[in-house]
Amino acid sequence: MKKNITPVYYGDYLQLDKILSAQSLQSEKYGAGAHDETLFIIVHQVYELWFRQLLHELSSVIDIFSADTVKDNQLITVVHRLQRMVHIQDLMNDQISVMETMTPQDFLAFRDYLVPASGFQSIQFKQLEISLGLKREYRIDFDKQSFYKRLNDEDRAYLEDLEQKQSLFELVDKWLSRLPLLKKDEFVFWQHYQHTAEQLLEADKQIIVNNTALSDSERRGELKEWQNNWDNFHALFNKVEYEEMRSEGKFRLSHDGILAALFIKQYAEEPIFNLPFQVITTLIDMDEKLTLWRYRHAMMVQRMLGTKIGTGGSSGHQYLKKTTESNRIFLDFFNMASFLLPKDSLPPLPEAIKKYCGFYIGHTGSNTTNSQLAT
Amino acid sequence: MKKNITPVYYGDYLQLDKILSAQSLQSEKYGAGAHDETLFIIVHQVYELWFRQLLHELSSVIDIFSADTVKDNQLITVVHRLQRMVHIQDLMNDQISVMETMTPQDFLAFRDYLVPASGFQSIQFKQLEISLGLKREYRIDFDKQSFYKRLNDEDRAYLEDLEQKQSLFELVDKWLSRLPLLKKDEFVFWQHYQHTAEQLLEADKQIIVNNTALSDSERRGELKEWQNNWDNFHALFNKVEYEEMRSEGKFRLSHDGILAALFIKQYAEEPIFNLPFQVITTLIDMDEKLTLWRYRHAMMVQRMLGTKIGTGGSSGHQYLKKTTESNRIFLDFFNMASFLLPKDSLPPLPEAIKKYCGFYIGHTGSNTTNSQLAT
Amino acid sequence: MKKNITPVYYGDYLQLDKILSAQSLQSEKYGAGAHDETLFIIVHQVYELWFRQLLHELSSVIDIFSADTVKDNQLITVVHRLQRMVHIQDLMNDQISVMETMTPQDFLAFRDYLVPASGFQSIQFKQLEISLGLKREYRIDFDKQSFYKRLNDEDRAYLEDLEQKQSLFELVDKWLSRLPLLKKDEFVFWQHYQHTAEQLLEADKQIIVNNTALSDSERRGELKEWQNNWDNFHALFNKVEYEEMRSEGKFRLSHDGILAALFIKQYAEEPIFNLPFQVITTLIDMDEKLTLWRYRHAMMVQRMLGTKIGTGGSSGHQYLKKTTESNRIFLDFFNMASFLLPKDSLPPLPEAIKKYCGFYIGHTGSNTTNSQLAT
Amino acid sequence: MKKNITPVYYGDYLQLDKILSAQSLQSEKYGAGAHDETLFIIVHQVYELWFRQLLHELSSVIDIFSADTVKDNQLITVVHRLQRMVHIQDLMNDQISVMETMTPQDFLAFRDYLVPASGFQSIQFKQLEISLGLKREYRIDFDKQSFYKRLNDEDRAYLEDLEQKQSLFELVDKWLSRLPLLKKDEFVFWQHYQHTAEQLLEADKQIIVNNTALSDSERRGELKEWQNNWDNFHALFNKVEYEEMRSEGKFRLSHDGILAALFIKQYAEEPIFNLPFQVITTLIDMDEKLTLWRYRHAMMVQRMLGTKIGTGGSSGHQYLKKTTESNRIFLDFFNMASFLLPKDSLPPLPEAIKKYCGFYIGHTGSNTTNSQLAT
Repeated sequence: MKKNITPVYYGDYLQLDKILSAQSLQSEKYGAGAHDETLFIIVHQVYELWFRQLLHELSSVIDIFSADTVKDNQLITVVHRLQRMVHIQDLMNDQISVMETMTPQDFLAFRDYLVPASGFQSIQFKQLEISLGLKREYRIDFDKQSFYKRLNDEDRAYLEDLEQKQSLFELVDKWLSRLPLLKKDEFVFWQHYQHTAEQLLEADKQIIVNNTALSDSERRGELKEWQNNWDNFHALFNKVEYEEMRSEGKFRLSHDGILAALFIKQYAEEPIFNLPFQVITTLIDMDEKLTLWRYRHAMMVQRMLGTKIGTGGSSGHQYLKKTTESNRIFLDFFNMASFLLPKDSLPPLPEAIKKYCGFYIGHTGSNTTNSQLAT
Repeated sequence: MKKNITPVYYGDYLQLDKILSAQSLQSEKYGAGAHDETLFIIVHQVYELWFRQLLHELSSVIDIFSADTVKDNQLITVVHRLQRMVHIQDLMNDQISVMETMTPQDFLAFRDYLVPASGFQSIQFKQLEISLGLKREYRIDFDKQSFYKRLNDEDRAYLEDLEQKQSLFELVDKWLSRLPLLKKDEFVFWQHYQHTAEQLLEADKQIIVNNTALSDSERRGELKEWQNNWDNFHALFNKVEYEEMRSEGKFRLSHDGILAALFIKQYAEEPIFNLPFQVITTLIDMDEKLTLWRYRHAMMVQRMLGTKIGTGGSSGHQYLKKTTESNRIFLDFFNMASFLLPKDSLPPLPEAIKKYCGFYIGHTGSNTTNSQLAT
Repeated sequence: MKKNITPVYYGDYLQLDKILSAQSLQSEKYGAGAHDETLFIIVHQVYELWFRQLLHELSSVIDIFSADTVKDNQLITVVHRLQRMVHIQDLMNDQISVMETMTPQDFLAFRDYLVPASGFQSIQFKQLEISLGLKREYRIDFDKQSFYKRLNDEDRAYLEDLEQKQSLFELVDKWLSRLPLLKKDEFVFWQHYQHTAEQLLEADKQIIVNNTALSDSERRGELKEWQNNWDNFHALFNKVEYEEMRSEGKFRLSHDGILAALFIKQYAEEPIFNLPFQVITTLIDMDEKLTLWRYRHAMMVQRMLGTKIGTGGSSGHQYLKKTTESNRIFLDFFNMASFLLPKDSLPPLPEAIKKYCGFYIGHTGSNTTNSQLAT
Repeated sequence: MKKNITPVYYGDYLQLDKILSAQSLQSEKYGAGAHDETLFIIVHQVYELWFRQLLHELSSVIDIFSADTVKDNQLITVVHRLQRMVHIQDLMNDQISVMETMTPQDFLAFRDYLVPASGFQSIQFKQLEISLGLKREYRIDFDKQSFYKRLNDEDRAYLEDLEQKQSLFELVDKWLSRLPLLKKDEFVFWQHYQHTAEQLLEADKQIIVNNTALSDSERRGELKEWQNNWDNFHALFNKVEYEEMRSEGKFRLSHDGILAALFIKQYAEEPIFNLPFQVITTLIDMDEKLTLWRYRHAMMVQRMLGTKIGTGGSSGHQYLKKTTESNRIFLDFFNMASFLLPKDSLPPLPEAIKKYCGFYIGHTGSNTTNSQLAT
């Protein structure tokens, strides 16, 4: 027990005077109090509180990755906080079902009083998008033009400034690129890897060719898709080609970054790669939950408004559907599943890596296990 | 589109200046900023926002039931809002898993700065309990004594005042009692009902007697439990006996109330009883979610503190476990499942009731279905 | 207690000998036992058990709607069973996260042994789609061609036969069309309705025109969308035009069906419309959960395979994404939110309808409430 | 693509002929087909499939812990599989809400045909309990007597045999005890630890003493609870006393086991302790989900049967409530939160441990970070 702590009262500590007095109904202001406007306000306020928490965690993770060196105990913290973010996202996704207890007619009772306010104006959500990595260049065309409209000057300036800072995506890419996994002397390793992967992809091609359930046009479509995969795969071994495809939007990670990530996913069960693997997996979870939120959000808007415009004066449902697939941030981590080898086809770890891992398996003569804690 | 609406800005509408500036860390005040205190504050603020929404819905439902007459379209509103409350409870229950991402050590980093603040001081939660029906007489002994301690004078006065008002439980009980289902001329009906139910209970007794898997002492235990059921059942037909058992806490609903509820549950698929049945079912859901929340809350506290005292200076885990089972409000609705008859054993509806339902099945000579909307 | 019941043993009753002996690993057959293939099998078997349950409920609901007349107590049963289906869908959606605990590499360890088995071959799922209303004409082009490929003759014949039977969509449409809501003498009502809705749509147009946040091209886009809404709305009052748009796929419900549904949604809080409204709402929920399942499924496949082909020899992720939006069945119920009026703008109920509802509000001289149960 | 793979058909692979033909309604056998019996059967079959999956994972984890040495990459596998079990438990808990869509009356329509079958006869669930660690000595009295009744001879023999094998609890306890953390030269460490923890406990005592919100009797209660904590804590440093308290059921872990666990929880963010910490945390999750399942199960039975006996001929609700709290397996991991120190009060790691961790921070002269992967 700390000394000299001033006693705290629950309501004061949580500043409930502010929190619980922040629900002013527009409908009441115009003499037409609508019961469900309270729900509408509170659901949005809860979202903003969760955004605040997500930004709190994200900002601490960005700080850690901003340093030149990320220690293992820091990675533990990173994984812990990213996983907490995913938990909160789960809750945010489920929360949509609470909003859906409002019928379209209940919404119509106050919708017109809110014009032109809109979720587009949630600074915290935009902040989240930018800080995760959804910077201008990656946004859909609609957003490229209108992301900053509707905001007041102060908010716009704040976000414009944020666009200049490093996002989680950029920092993770740099961290991956710095991992000492991909030296020249690993040439033989990658050669082996490439050879095995090609065989697997070729086998897939044969499945398509021999698949009698496909019509000719379907087969052509599948083979085209297969060819894309083949091309993407080969770009991994040709930096020039890779950068060209990256400039066309086919990849987002840097060349070094994607190779490191691929390596980590392949050898996830090596203790030394386990924490980096958990970082990648949690970012996949986060990306998936975010796109799911957009999708559920789009469904909810469609229930409520059909194909009408939202209070912000543009079609919320269409916008949300468009961004659902496009605004993916860590999509490369999903797509690289296309190139993974089964464990039993993995080439032996290159010597250079083995050396790094060496202390695990041989740092004392007598210990035959891979950790001092092993028992 | 309404005329002359002053344009609204998202952040102003939601009063985000208040909402997002209400997180002041105690740990920072004492120069020992703890990362997870933000989570702790925000999780509690979100709970308080949901409590506010629950109270908003509850208060509107209480208003409806406070009138002498509750029309069917009002029952539709009641069911809709109670079901929304249940949705919010689901979310609140899942939210505990977000809090559980905080480790005991993370909590220890700021716990001592919060003394003696405590969830016991959440006025809104106490308000919810009282308004649902958890008034003084029904609280566990610990609560009888300490429910109002720890509160400041203003909060205590506010809640003491609330204890005088009618709770949802009381109003639902009165509404049930007023339903014109239980006139004297239904004597034959209840006689038939009693006779059939006795046969079913007797059959259960035989199952116990013949159950070779039970030891003698187990059989005695089961038979004692069975005898309780039998006694409870017979009290339904003897108002004096019922009231005595009620005063011992074996029932909470009034005698008329419990008979009406039983009737409604039996004939739930008669259109005229469907809305009342939905009211009862949703109250069962609500009671179940609330007790589940207490239970999950108790588990979470145990993870965090083990058997130590909480910041309020008493054992949160023990308290929460105690109240989990005891603080049930609509328990009678659960327990009456003991006396339900299968549909094929139901006595025919009494004439008096049939007359009430008559307009459904015969108000025009030509219509053979039970509703004009039937097609 | 029934007489002469042969005693039952838990494992026999559930036929656990069959259920628990139905997991044969392909990987083991080829001498390369893969730990996670058990999960893969069991997750799919659980899905098939839930499909079976969904089909059980669906089939009973189809039976009810197949009769010429649907009574109110049958609607109660319908709503109850549809809501149960939605509960099961929730569980099925969450179940995807269990599958996602399998890493791409874990899957690669046995994937090749499964060729060409594929979820495309789940007869029960196809049965569910067809019985809900996803018949040939509504499928995406890919499905039009390949829906029946990959199936053996028996399965194909079974489903082809099912295509001839009435689906839930068709039956609900007919049921709606039969509702006696839209007689000629309601002309004045619809005139009033049309007039009010036009004013609201016009107001929306002004919001777009005056929305300075939109660029010129965005404004053109929004106005085009608005015009679509306007055209769709007017088609409601012109059967010829409506049928033309319906043949282009802009609507799916019959003209009478959509007007009845619109009517019901508008007057949902009239007791007589409450059960039909619950039917519609639950079908909206069902459609939403199903599309959500497709979307989550697509995400899961992308995690597992990236852009590679599935075991069935075609791209699962692409297919699932395509069907997510296209394979909507009750989309009209969502889109009609575009045309709803706020409660305070609703025209008075037409006389003909009032008469139908009359027994609620006036069938006895003395009763001033709208139900005999009102108290 | 493997060579010479016999093509597989979806339905054959999943043995759907067995799975989908295993639903025979007892009610139909007696000519009184009950619609909801299908749900009842399928819900239980799904549970049995999940039990099978849980046992598959559990058995693989038990195999790993049964070896003399557990390597780090094996711990990765252990954590992964335990976390999958927790995911499945989440689903199983939510599944109760599907069962709750069955009304008491729907259940009554077939309940009597099931006598004396009962969930008590689920061999897989009993197997799960025993293998996790709920062996005879730890069961509640009721279970001590009746756990094996109601089973046929074969099932009983199978489980009796399982009681002789090592449970996960026992194996984890042994693994913890073997961790080389608690040598004699750590005496100074534990002395420091004890001293600090005593100060914290003393501070808690002062909070109770000074808590004016407590009545005298409450204060006595809290002080008694505090004294228990104090005694438990001191038993950690006195093996004789500890074993005595353990024999009274106050602890379940061995003395070495609990000290190791405490150590790991304290230093969870040291990379070398991270995997063991995750093992402990996931076991906490598992225990919590299991008790939650019992609790929700008890609620569901109460809704369905009130206080009546179940088909097995004894009170399911009472039994489930009793086991909810008592049948905890890893309760020590919860309770040890009582003795944790805040990070800033932790004594420096003992030299012996530091040496074990040494390779992380100093195994090459030049590397200043704690892992070769650090960047």
